Amino acid sequence: MKNTYNPLSSSIRKKLRQILGKRFLETQEDLRAYSVDASPHSFLPEAVALPESAEEIAQILRLAQKEKFPVIPRGAGTSTTGATLAVKGGLVISLLRLNRILEINREDLVAVVEPGVFTGDFKRAVEEVGLFYPPDPASYEFSTIGGNVACGAGGPKGLKYGTTKDYVLGLEVVTARGEIIFCGRRTMKGVVGYDLVHLFTGSEGTLGVITKLILKLIPKPPCQATLALWLEDTEKAAKAFLEILKAKLFPATAELLDDTTLLAVKRFLEKEILRAQALLLLEFDGAKKQVEEDLLQAQKILKNFGLKLEVATSKQEREKLWRARRLISPALKKIAPGKLADDVVLPRSKVPEFLSFAKNTGEKYGLTVACFGHLGDGNIHVNILFEKNDEIKAQKVRVEILNKVLDLCGTISGEHGIGLTKKGFLPKELSPEVLSLMKGIKQVFDPHNILNPEKIF
Amino acid sequence: MKNTYNPLSSSIRKKLRQILGKRFLETQEDLRAYSVDASPHSFLPEAVALPESAEEIAQILRLAQKEKFPVIPRGAGTSTTGATLAVKGGLVISLLRLNRILEINREDLVAVVEPGVFTGDFKRAVEEVGLFYPPDPASYEFSTIGGNVACGAGGPKGLKYGTTKDYVLGLEVVTARGEIIFCGRRTMKGVVGYDLVHLFTGSEGTLGVITKLILKLIPKPPCQATLALWLEDTEKAAKAFLEILKAKLFPATAELLDDTTLLAVKRFLEKEILRAQALLLLEFDGAKKQVEEDLLQAQKILKNFGLKLEVATSKQEREKLWRARRLISPALKKIAPGKLADDVVLPRSKVPEFLSFAKNTGEKYGLTVACFGHLGDGNIHVNILFEKNDEIKAQKVRVEILNKVLDLCGTISGEHGIGLTKKGFLPKELSPEVLSLMKGIKQVFDPHNILNPEKIF
Ligand SMILES: Cc1cc2nc3c(=O)[nH]c(=O)nc-3n(C[C@H](O)[C@H](O)[C@H](O)COP(=O)(O)OP(=O)(O)OC[C@H]3O[C@@H](n4cnc5c(N)ncnc54)[C@H](O)[C@@H]3O)c2cc1C
Ligand SMILES: Cc1cc2nc3c(=O)[nH]c(=O)nc-3n(C[C@H](O)[C@H](O)[C@H](O)COP(=O)(O)OP(=O)(O)OC[C@H]3O[C@@H](n4cnc5c(N)ncnc54)[C@H](O)[C@@H]3O)c2cc1C
Repeated sequence: MKNTYNPLSSSIRKKLRQILGKRFLETQEDLRAYSVDASPHSFLPEAVALPESAEEIAQILRLAQKEKFPVIPRGAGTSTTGATLAVKGGLVISLLRLNRILEINREDLVAVVEPGVFTGDFKRAVEEVGLFYPPDPASYEFSTIGGNVACGAGGPKGLKYGTTKDYVLGLEVVTARGEIIFCGRRTMKGVVGYDLVHLFTGSEGTLGVITKLILKLIPKPPCQATLALWLEDTEKAAKAFLEILKAKLFPATAELLDDTTLLAVKRFLEKEILRAQALLLLEFDGAKKQVEEDLLQAQKILKNFGLKLEVATSKQEREKLWRARRLISPALKKIAPGKLADDVVLPRSKVPEFLSFAKNTGEKYGLTVACFGHLGDGNIHVNILFEKNDEIKAQKVRVEILNKVLDLCGTISGEHGIGLTKKGFLPKELSPEVLSLMKGIKQVFDPHNILNPEKIF
Repeated sequence: MKNTYNPLSSSIRKKLRQILGKRFLETQEDLRAYSVDASPHSFLPEAVALPESAEEIAQILRLAQKEKFPVIPRGAGTSTTGATLAVKGGLVISLLRLNRILEINREDLVAVVEPGVFTGDFKRAVEEVGLFYPPDPASYEFSTIGGNVACGAGGPKGLKYGTTKDYVLGLEVVTARGEIIFCGRRTMKGVVGYDLVHLFTGSEGTLGVITKLILKLIPKPPCQATLALWLEDTEKAAKAFLEILKAKLFPATAELLDDTTLLAVKRFLEKEILRAQALLLLEFDGAKKQVEEDLLQAQKILKNFGLKLEVATSKQEREKLWRARRLISPALKKIAPGKLADDVVLPRSKVPEFLSFAKNTGEKYGLTVACFGHLGDGNIHVNILFEKNDEIKAQKVRVEILNKVLDLCGTISGEHGIGLTKKGFLPKELSPEVLSLMKGIKQVFDPHNILNPEKIF
């Protein structure tokens, strides 16, 4: 999909100013603020728009379609794959001003929200009325609902509750043509026509700009408990979890920290568990009796697996057990200047094999690989750590690891998406025929390729 | 999408015979057997194919693409919307010979199956190893997994467990071009490229022929209980259910039978509940203690609502409570020669209003409307009953009812799909812009419109 774009001429800028007034940004500082996300890359956009309605966005897109300039939708900019970057210049559209929670309906169990609402704020608002919106990317306090849907974000609760994808019922979207459309529904289910909702979900801003979302809610589970198992090695942790599943226990969450990850956050290890080389965190939720029963059974299964088993039921104690997990990102940053991060998913049975492969492959090249993440749904965050001049080695490790993922019937991204940084690996996972169908869809939705160019494909 | 097709000439037939041998059917009896489904319509295909592999189907589709003849995929033919009918002639492809359960994996919690497996057989095979495949269309004993996925089938368990859509991880599909592609994954989640799995799911055989499915399984809930509440009127049943939800109880199933439906199955009413004008069936599942607690709480809430409350926990007793529900279809057929059936979905809070509207609208025209179905997810099966010469009146009632559904933010089909019989109503629910995007997708996947023509659009 090669296209040529026109720069934002002064006449285009004038029209954008007419639409947006002061909410059209052009200063260098502003552009720089929108030139980065949580990826290691940076591209300067030509301008930034802060629209306050779908109608404004529709006007912008009609103009972009006519004048052929790129438009890049942006939530909070926490993409780890460079999905928000203005690779071809053009206009970044920030959705942060469309930030109202329009409705939380306790009878229908749905919420209607605008895309710029921060996910954490939304989750709290829902819980205040006794309901529950399960998706919980680690970034939920600083990423948006719109961004979560555009990426198909996942999180620890994915094991029991699925991911963002499973909670989107209906979407208002501004198309590349500048039409405001509604797809999907407000009802729990529906099969009228093709499923456009799931097509927009995870499309990383390449098919349309999401301007309103109808989300499914569920009743809030009244009780939660956390179980921390400190173990001697990582593979054992993965195996312990498989035993939990075999016993037909179905925790809400199963998070893993391997030895390197634990080392990075070691100040949180207490003395007696310093020998621990892995941490498995399980969370059970549901009615009180259910959770009690689950905990007992889980403790019985796990007691022979590890060095120490801790259980917490109060919010405060649970938070303490979660501390190590919450601090992984900053901790890993401290121990190595360079990091190549992937969020692969394996069939659950293949996780133990994969974990030792990743470690060994790192060692083969003299590099450290830290694995952690959502063991529950097989979604392992693989972090290849390297010193400045080792990037080429790190890339080699990455290729070997991603190839192994595909050999084991896994997928190269469970939640972060493709964006810019994983484009090269797409043809490894998807056949030319599948890619050609996807490109055909892109062509239908965005014939001039103005929406978030250079992403995914 | 108007196209002209070529009849199956003798040279085409020869080639099909080369591909299929004796599994190419042309006799009048065979054609007649494949000319009907569970809709009131009938169209004779020109021939029928019984392929035994994806490769054979690919060969057929390459031929169809070249020679421009229609190809209609068919599972068990239980479509209520005429989705399997050879409206433009052509070749029906029966998937019933691709009927192997290839794998049920207890560690990965996935199954790999061919499309022609009957859903009931699959559910039993899964339960035999202690796992659970929740989707349960009322037709599960006589419909196929492939047909269920192609329709996005739902069922009573939709309330707690979602519908077929929520259990499809990966698909092998033969495209209209005759390519065998794989989309999706074997892992619990993934966001690599656009979501083709959900696009094929519910596409009613218009985008490709599904030849293999990777399905998600969950642990089997160890305990189940059924609760039957007999009430004086239908609206009260809908309201009773809303109270259950408000108490944050989340049953697996909530089924409703209104007065007309109950009347039709009245031989199953015992003496003391003859006064009953509605039946609400709730089912709870989960750990034993949990189910016990839920039952107690539900009984407390419901005891003032109805005429009689019955509870059953053993399989046999539960089956007894379900009898009335299971016999609706044959019972309704008995009381009126004509029936217009829809499977609309309402936001839960609008169900009581809708139920009385449907009844009143019927009465206005002197017709009886029977409502029953999956109250749990707001999916009401509306059956307009009529004598032979009242069809025009019935159509009028239907239009008023479907308009009301849309006024109440509902959708005109929750699980049966559009097929042939609801095409006319599609533009009521979907805007021209949305329809045009869907037709664009169809064009990408099937440029010559050979796959199941005249369906959906
Ligand atoms: C420390 C950290 C932890 C993280 N943990 C997780 C995790 O556990 N799970 C996970 O899934 N991700 C995680 N992420 C990645 C990231 O937070 C998610 O992808 C998140 O969904 C992005 O939301 P955002 O609002 O920041 O979107 P942005 O980064 O601004 O945008 C992401 C993509 O969505 C598009 N987009 C944004 N809004 C819209 C819209 N309204 N309409 C159309 N397209 C739009 C953009 O064009 C871009 O392609 C993490 C990131 C960080 C930095
Ligand atoms: C008594 C009765 C009760 C019912 N109850 C329910 C219910 O509770 N919930 C519900 O959702 N439905 C219900 N249905 C409708 C019907 O059973 C479902 O739609 C079912 O999913 C159809 O499966 P099938 O194998 O019979 O498919 P068919 O009827 O043969 O085909 C249905 C559609 O799927 C396509 N198709 C079939 N197989 C494939 C394939 N392998 N690849 C591509 N396309 C394919 C066909 O082209 C057609 O468009 C009921 C029907 C009856 C008669």
